[in-house]
Parts: sequence; C-alpha cells; structure tokens
Amino acid sequence: MDITDTWQELIIPGGKIVYLVMDGLGGLGSEETGRTALDTAETPNLDALAHDSSCGLLEMVGPGITPGSGPGHLALFGYDPLRWRIGRGVLSALGIDFPLQPGDLAARVNFASINSAGEITDRRAGRIPTELNQRLCAKIQDALDLDFDGEAFLKTESQHRAVLVLRSPDADALSDDLPETDPQTTGRPPIPMEPQSDQAKVAAEVVAQFLEQADAAIADEQPANALLLRGFQRHEVLPGLQERFGLKGLCIAEYPMYRGLSRLLGMDVAEPPTGMDALFESFEQQVGDDHDFYFLHVKGTDSTGEDGNVTEKGAVIEEVDRRIPWLLEQQPDVLVVTGDHSTPAMMSAHSWHPVPVLLHAQHARRDAAQRFDETSCLKGALGLRPGFHLLGLALGHAGRMKKFGA
Amino acid sequence: MDITDTWQELIIPGGKIVYLVMDGLGGLGSEETGRTALDTAETPNLDALAHDSSCGLLEMVGPGITPGSGPGHLALFGYDPLRWRIGRGVLSALGIDFPLQPGDLAARVNFASINSAGEITDRRAGRIPTELNQRLCAKIQDALDLDFDGEAFLKTESQHRAVLVLRSPDADALSDDLPETDPQTTGRPPIPMEPQSDQAKVAAEVVAQFLEQADAAIADEQPANALLLRGFQRHEVLPGLQERFGLKGLCIAEYPMYRGLSRLLGMDVAEPPTGMDALFESFEQQVGDDHDFYFLHVKGTDSTGEDGNVTEKGAVIEEVDRRIPWLLEQQPDVLVVTGDHSTPAMMSAHSWHPVPVLLHAQHARRDAAQRFDETSCLKGALGLRPGFHLLGLALGHAGRMKKFGA
Repeated sequence: MDITDTWQELIIPGGKIVYLVMDGLGGLGSEETGRTALDTAETPNLDALAHDSSCGLLEMVGPGITPGSGPGHLALFGYDPLRWRIGRGVLSALGIDFPLQPGDLAARVNFASINSAGEITDRRAGRIPTELNQRLCAKIQDALDLDFDGEAFLKTESQHRAVLVLRSPDADALSDDLPETDPQTTGRPPIPMEPQSDQAKVAAEVVAQFLEQADAAIADEQPANALLLRGFQRHEVLPGLQERFGLKGLCIAEYPMYRGLSRLLGMDVAEPPTGMDALFESFEQQVGDDHDFYFLHVKGTDSTGEDGNVTEKGAVIEEVDRRIPWLLEQQPDVLVVTGDHSTPAMMSAHSWHPVPVLLHAQHARRDAAQRFDETSCLKGALGLRPGFHLLGLALGHAGRMKKFGA
Repeated sequence: MDITDTWQELIIPGGKIVYLVMDGLGGLGSEETGRTALDTAETPNLDALAHDSSCGLLEMVGPGITPGSGPGHLALFGYDPLRWRIGRGVLSALGIDFPLQPGDLAARVNFASINSAGEITDRRAGRIPTELNQRLCAKIQDALDLDFDGEAFLKTESQHRAVLVLRSPDADALSDDLPETDPQTTGRPPIPMEPQSDQAKVAAEVVAQFLEQADAAIADEQPANALLLRGFQRHEVLPGLQERFGLKGLCIAEYPMYRGLSRLLGMDVAEPPTGMDALFESFEQQVGDDHDFYFLHVKGTDSTGEDGNVTEKGAVIEEVDRRIPWLLEQQPDVLVVTGDHSTPAMMSAHSWHPVPVLLHAQHARRDAAQRFDETSCLKGALGLRPGFHLLGLALGHAGRMKKFGA
C-alpha cells in the first residue's frame, strides 16, 4: 500500500495529461564550465514554460540509487519501482511485440564471441547486423529439441540483442530465480546456469539445455558463436493505468523498450516515429482522440549522455525546445516535461541524481524557477520528491481526483 | 523493510566515505542577533566546501521529534531509528568496553543523593569524582547476594554515571519492559521498580532486589547514597555496517557512547583521541588503511550547546573549520559534514530541528548553498530529508551501489 492506492480510490474523469520524457535528462556541471547540458542549451521555450509552471526535482527509486530505464519510467507512471519490479527480459519481449502470457519466463539474449578455450572475447559479437541475428535465431530455433513440455521462442531484437521466452503449460512451473550467464567482462567463460533456489530447478534445467543446443547450433558461425543470458523474469500481469488511475494511455516512442513498458501498463502504442519531427507530428495527429494520457519519449538525451557528449546532449534538448510551442498549441490540460533518470555526460552513465521536472497547467502554482535546469528547479513549488509522486500531481492538476473526505 | 534493504541488494565495492559528525550541530537564531552558532562562527573552509558540495538538511527521527544521541547516530549510519531501537544502557555498556552478550539486560546508573525522607536531593550526587564512583561500585558489587541464577555487573562509566548489566543463563529470561526509577526531578523518591508487562516480572524482581541491596550498601556514604536506573534494554545483535552496506568502518571518537554504538554496528574503534588535533591526526594516520568508512566524532558542539553557550559552540565549530583543509588533503572519495541532531544554545538541550549537512564528492551536484549554515542548506541539492537517507547518498556518490533494474 502506498499513496497511489488512495489516488485509485479518488479517480474521476478529467482533462488530458501529456508527458514529454527526455530520457536521462538530468546532468552534472562539467568540470570546465560547471554547467550541465540543460544549463548550457539554449532553451527559451522550456525556460518560459518553467517560468509559467510548477517546477521540482524527482528522485526516481531512492536516495543514492541509480535507476535503470524500466524502474525510472515505472516511477513516472505512478508505480513505485520498489513495489513493482520488472526485469529487462520482460520489457524487451514486450518491446518487440512478442505476445507474452502470464507465467512466461523471459530473458535478454546477447550474441557473443567465444574462443576455443570457451572464454568470451566479445560480449556483443562486434554488434552483428540485425539480419545476421535473424538468420542465427532461425537456425537455433530449427535445431532446438528440448526435453520440455512447453515452448521456447528466440526472437531478434536488433544487432546482437535478442529475447528468449520459455512457456510452460503450467503457468507456475518456471521460476526466474536464475543467475545471469553474462559475466559482464571478457576473458572468462559464461557463468554456468544453476538454480538459485529449489523452485527454480525446472527452469534452470530447461535453460541449461537450451543454451547447450543453441551454442552447438552456432558453434561454427563467426563472430557470433555463443549466447549470453541475463535479466530473467517471469511475466506477471500488472494492473494497468486504466485500472489504477482511469487513464487510457497512448505511447509514442521510437525505441522498443519504452513501447514494451507502455503495453505492459495497458497503454496503446502508436506507430513508432522516426526522428523528432515524427514524434511531435504523431502526437499532433492523435491528441484529439479518446486517450487521456500521452507519453512522448525522446531517447537522444540519454544516448548522448551515455556517450559523454555534453554538447550533443544539449543539442538534443535544443531540438526538443524548438518543438515546445507546437506542443502547447495542442493545449494539453496538463503538460509535464521531465526525464526518467539522470545521465550526466561527465559520467557517461545513468546516475542517482534527481531529475528536473516542470508541470504546466491552468492551476499549477507558479514559483521562483525562471529556467528549466537542475539548480533552478530546486526553487520549485513541487520540491524534491519521489518520482512516483508525479502522476498524482498530474492527476490532481487535470481535475482527475475528487476530494478526499468531506 | 525500507529503502536501506534495497541498498543492501545493490552494494558493490567503491570509494572511501568519511563522516565528520559535529554532535548537536544544528541551532536556532539567538534572540539578540537572530543568528545560530554556525551562522556566527567564522568558517571560511566549511563555507568554501559547502559551495563545492551538495547541501541539505536532515530530520533524524521524524517531524517534531527530538533525537537522543543514539538514534541520531543510527540514522546517520543508515539505520532508521524507528526500526532499530537501542537503549542508552546498551550504548553505555558498549562504550566502557563491557563485553555484552545477546540477552543481557543493561541500564544506565546514576549515583544520586537522597535525604532521610527518601527524597532525591541531587540526581547526580554533585557529579562525584570517578574514583569515588569506582570505590562505591566495588563496595556494592561485594555486598550483592541476589536470589538470581545469573550475574549482575555494576561498572563505572565516569563521574556519577555507571552501568548495570544483568545476565541470565537463559538469554530469553530478562525483558526490558521496566520503568526508569529516575523521576527526572528532585524532591521526590525514586520511582518504584515494577514490571510493565507479565514477561518483565523476573527482571523487575531481580532489579528491585539489586536496588535494595545496593542502596543498603552505600546508605552511609555521602553524597552518593542511592542509585537511579534508566534506559533499560536487552542487548540484541544488530546487522552491522559490513553486512548491511559492505562497509568496513572505523570510529574515531573521544566519548565512550559513540565508540559503543560503532562497536555495536561492527565498526573497528580507534584509540580514543584527546582533543581536536588528536582526532584529525588519528584520521590522517589511518585513512590509508583498509577501512571504507571513517566516522570522526566531535563532542564539543553538543556540550557547549547544552551549556547554552552560543559563543563557545561557535568557537568549537571554528576549531573544526581550521582543520577542514587537513581533512581534504587526505582526499576522501566522499566527505560528509553534519551533526546527529540539533542542540540550540538558546534551548540548552537537544531539539527536533533538522541538521545541516554537506556532501562533498566528485559527482556531487553543486547547488545554490554558498555557506554552511541552517538557512543556506535549505537551498541545497539534497533537500530536507530523513536522516537515514544520508548513507544511501554517500554510498551512491562513492560508487558503491550498482544500477537498480535495467
């Protein structure tokens, strides 16, 4: 139980909510200039919007904790990531439109390169082309002859990445208490597949058999001649945004994982847009439909942050900034601009630092934040708070919750 | 379960963390100047450090709650004091190096003065010299003849303070559900020892008998002719800093209670330093060893606050300030400066007010706090948050937690 259960009790119909999520938005001042990407970027439209909004900072999982993209987005959608846990395997499967069923065991797969001593020489097999991935998946799928009363699906994601789904006729049969076989380093063999608890014995046996047959099927291939597995998770059905918060959601995202997560929460998913204009055009075309909640996802802020490129990250933010007037023309009742976690360019990685947020609505209390950046948002009316609080604030500002008590 | 359990799941090796704790650091503006001790003190080094750190305020136990030193420090070390309770008796016993065993019942003892009517005339017996305390403890210990299948230990702490430990062969026998016999005022008799629940009957009987025999043994002494007991607690083993957060800790503290608490959490304890130079010298000598976590404790800020002396409290802070460059020369990966609670000189007592904190690290987000004081820290990037969040922030900044989810 947490505050989101109370929101659920109070839900009524109301206005439309739009989330513009710039992945990995938060940053750290660079050692040279002391400024973050958001600080450095020319963002007249976001700054004007911040001036006319309630601002704040979101701590997505907890103090000092660096969120993965899954937990970061769950928090934004009103699901405390400590309460609702989703593995990357499940997200990846949903992201490639694989029709997961409850009880399915999903894992992320990497095609890797292994030498004759059985040691990993490249955890990503030189990022093989997607076409080769597809051919190898088919080859493995053909070769499989598992001693297992269920099914195994190996599906291409892209480049070296694929998804494994095991499905048993007994939905309780497959536990996800399994180790990752990827040692996260080269020069070592994969980690052996052994159950981490008694109830995972069946699953471990099937996975070990799968790995043996799969590796045998591609042993003569180059450079991808082995599989690494991680992020095992059983698929459990989550209560969706409609059930929890009365929101019929629409996801507009270019990257599979974000569409997968949105599907998991019962959102509809728009045709994947290619590029920033397509993202905003897609929104413009669909904002008049019967959805209550629009989730627009921008990936570039995270990728450039991961690349350590503060200038490019700033350029992506500027690209978004130029399209803000376009967004405002659609007059969403509530517009939220934020990120799912910080990805400081100076760290080239996700980080634990809170993420700036602005909430624009007719009844948003204005504050002293005059710009949209990490420091200005500290002066904001929303304060520094757990990420999963955000959806409640959006619901409130959209008039979607009735009074609590009399 | 709380967020600290999630930290425990994520722990990996990383950098060194240093806590410089000024006991009772927080204050209130005086009626004359409106300024706190921290405001008034000349602290160029702390101010420069604050400028180059993330700042904030810590609420140690909860809104409006005044922390004792034990709970205040527990919070700093990542143990929510509402979840992990430690009585002062246990802390005092650990502080005099008494080898407590699980199930031992410990209490703080005051030598007091009682008149012929049995009323307390001085709760501290004029703060008798430690040597007299030692003689009286021995005299009582000799006279004891308890009808109890276990042992009783009465040990000198210092001045009028001592520690009582009762040990039964049955570790479950002694409940700590007992009243304090100290009425916290003079002119009244001690509070009678009566069990607060059925399971405390055995313990209450033994303690009542102990008190009777002890008071009889020193009835003719002056000025210390009676004992007052408080802070009863059974000693239960706590999971230590190593088990919970992967930290090999070292405590450098002049006062016994802080060393006792550190031992309880599995920290090593350095030779007690005498004076401020010795404290920092001890740190300098040991910072290169294999500890991950160094806890430096400064008592003077609390004692001067308790004495109501804002000038002296400021002087202690200035003494610390002059040694900050010394600390920075050791280049800790994470340096935290804070207190365990507020002790405003104008209140001459601990208080509930949040405590200023600064966290200095390579990846600490800079904020608008330009000075280290109660007001400036309100502008800080760490915000106002529960005290037990601090260790997670320190772990994150030290690179000691892996990413949560994918």
